Amino acid sequence: MVPPATKGTPSVPDLLSGNAVIGQSGGPTAVINQSLAGAVEGLRAGLAASGQVKRILGMRHGVRGLIKPGTEGLTDLTSLDKAKLEAIARTPSAALGSTRDKPDEAYCGKILDGCRRNDIRYLFYIGGNDSADTCRIVSEQAAQAGYELRCFHVPKTIDNDLLENDHTPGFPSAARYVTLALMGDALDNASLGGIKINVIMGRNAGFLAAASSLARGQAATGADPADRPAPHLIYVPEVPFSTDGFLADVETVYAKLGRCQIAVSEGIRDAAAAEIGPKLMRGAGELDAHGNVQLSGSGALGDGLADLVKSALTPKGGKAPRVRADTFGYIQRCWPHASPVDIAEARAVGRYAAELAAKGDAAASVIIVRRSNAPGAYASDCARADLSAVARRTRHVPAEFISGTNDVSAAFHDYCRPLVGDLPKMERL
Amino acid sequence: MVPPATKGTPSVPDLLSGNAVIGQSGGPTAVINQSLAGAVEGLRAGLAASGQVKRILGMRHGVRGLIKPGTEGLTDLTSLDKAKLEAIARTPSAALGSTRDKPDEAYCGKILDGCRRNDIRYLFYIGGNDSADTCRIVSEQAAQAGYELRCFHVPKTIDNDLLENDHTPGFPSAARYVTLALMGDALDNASLGGIKINVIMGRNAGFLAAASSLARGQAATGADPADRPAPHLIYVPEVPFSTDGFLADVETVYAKLGRCQIAVSEGIRDAAAAEIGPKLMRGAGELDAHGNVQLSGSGALGDGLADLVKSALTPKGGKAPRVRADTFGYIQRCWPHASPVDIAEARAVGRYAAELAAKGDAAASVIIVRRSNAPGAYASDCARADLSAVARRTRHVPAEFISGTNDVSAAFHDYCRPLVGDLPKMERL
Repeated sequence: MVPPATKGTPSVPDLLSGNAVIGQSGGPTAVINQSLAGAVEGLRAGLAASGQVKRILGMRHGVRGLIKPGTEGLTDLTSLDKAKLEAIARTPSAALGSTRDKPDEAYCGKILDGCRRNDIRYLFYIGGNDSADTCRIVSEQAAQAGYELRCFHVPKTIDNDLLENDHTPGFPSAARYVTLALMGDALDNASLGGIKINVIMGRNAGFLAAASSLARGQAATGADPADRPAPHLIYVPEVPFSTDGFLADVETVYAKLGRCQIAVSEGIRDAAAAEIGPKLMRGAGELDAHGNVQLSGSGALGDGLADLVKSALTPKGGKAPRVRADTFGYIQRCWPHASPVDIAEARAVGRYAAELAAKGDAAASVIIVRRSNAPGAYASDCARADLSAVARRTRHVPAEFISGTNDVSAAFHDYCRPLVGDLPKMERL
Repeated sequence: MVPPATKGTPSVPDLLSGNAVIGQSGGPTAVINQSLAGAVEGLRAGLAASGQVKRILGMRHGVRGLIKPGTEGLTDLTSLDKAKLEAIARTPSAALGSTRDKPDEAYCGKILDGCRRNDIRYLFYIGGNDSADTCRIVSEQAAQAGYELRCFHVPKTIDNDLLENDHTPGFPSAARYVTLALMGDALDNASLGGIKINVIMGRNAGFLAAASSLARGQAATGADPADRPAPHLIYVPEVPFSTDGFLADVETVYAKLGRCQIAVSEGIRDAAAAEIGPKLMRGAGELDAHGNVQLSGSGALGDGLADLVKSALTPKGGKAPRVRADTFGYIQRCWPHASPVDIAEARAVGRYAAELAAKGDAAASVIIVRRSNAPGAYASDCARADLSAVARRTRHVPAEFISGTNDVSAAFHDYCRPLVGDLPKMERL
């Protein structure tokens, strides 16, 4: 049943014969299953068609499935019906299940054992910079152990914080959700007035909070936040957050307009790089597996900022302004209607990883490169980067995308606008 | 310029000559501007075409605009471009601006003064049961004062809590948002496991939280919540909320599935009818203009429930389960992509109000009646009710829509499913 190893044959150079495994890791996205489908599709068209890959396996809950004894943590995708695969591709969140595990050297040793046990020669891991790092460590351990294993990282993160990538699959759909939400919310805020705070995901990178600016329907317009279409104020972790500056900004806009719409990244931090969220939380913050205070899945930062604004802007003996905070939770990463660009690119990066494998690449991270940003002619390509160029490192919102202390630039608008797809036209009296 | 009063003429019986005014009140919805457009359209086709209505005015921020001196709180819609009106109709949130003012007798006296001052003979107010009550009081005061005024209430509320109505414009779109959000969130919860609490709007009526059940793609299935597709547990204000019962429910599901998705109405209350939200809030709750503790625009209830679950389900010396809470804020009422049924019906109720006026009706609340609920053949009509039948009163989720203490019934599914429009198909491995 097992075809002979073709390593060294001239027509298909340097290929290994065995099984392939695909996993999904970290916070799911609206299009992470497109990447799963792309990898399966690419393997079927390439290494499986030519006989190198016998079985296409899926990890249940990422590497956590791969390290389980026997095959209980794996699922066989080899003969998965094409129509079902397409339906899964259109479904948000990780169909294989995901994990927050961040493997160290010892854990990676177990992953390698899992690969050996299941005759896996091709490993595809869809995730962020931790997943790239897992691929890197496992790849190095395999080389040291003399076990031939090909490791491919497939990019995914709504935070858009992977180096080498123009942007990452998952981000455009989340940015689309944030844009649509802010468009509606801006009008809600205009209807009833007051101050509205929207807390948006992104612990280390402010790209998603920055995407709120697309709700304006135009690039940023000026230094006076009251002259901008809503959202009037945008705060990202890359710009040190000053509570006094924030309150002065809000007061300026509110005094002029009687309302103020704010987008703030959950990861904002002060000049000493300390996160604002935990400082404002009324209760004790929960620590996650990485030792970070839990920011998502809690309204604490938004409520804390709202309390601050209420205290500062209530006139002595007067009535507090109407202040409301919404914390955009998990819906922003799993909303069923994804960005068309994101759908296509998430599929492409999965397929490209399988194509790299079919070309004999030993280890790589797939990246997205923007080929054209001409109006109406946005185009991107997949390319490869070394795992070490992506692993563990974090990309931040670059300086040219930021404007002052409370806004993003026109360059960010040009960068982000093509990614989110068509937006409805809003009309006002 | 002013056509003669046609009151008493045989062909157009009992009509008044003067201006019409339209206002929007309370929490905006995704389709409240459809009702505005419908009223304008209906007036143009009827009373304005026949000359009874000279000018079509809009109140800026509801009755607050109408009581302002002069015309500063009014805007003239008489010649508003048709294309612009259509674009406004498609835009969420109140284009005229809204208000939370709940007029008493004295305030209504000022409204009547505003009508006299501006030669208004037809008043259309788009809103909930408070708006119907405003229409009722103003109508009675006008009759007592001998000022002929026609008052029409046009229904609107995402809470779906107006009597006489099968459902209310705004609810289907909000229900669609909640359904789509829960669909994505259910898969996100399945990907990473743990307990996920979603707090949904609805202080007095649980219809919107109940709509979360549509995310299952089928009617409710049984008494064991672990056997239900997610959301596993649904809590509405109509069923007394027991903290112990809630924790037992969650534990049952979590123990069986390793996860649990929960939909809970912000308005849940205990057996003594006391709201749960304020009891769980970590900080002091803010009182709104009606003396109610602020529930929306704050993550406090969700965070409080999450704290409860964590405390109860953490084994002694063991690791706390992953518990996350999202509070669905204002986005659920202003998401730009509305339900097609809602779009059509919100337009229809506005137009129907103008038609009632053209028929000589003196005062009425427009209601929605379901004509057919046959599969694939849902249909509704507009009809009229007396203002007093709708004013101030609250409709609750009826007993036949409720199943046990933590679910809704198949009858609710049949009721709600036609309202929200097409839903994406979700596929799992």
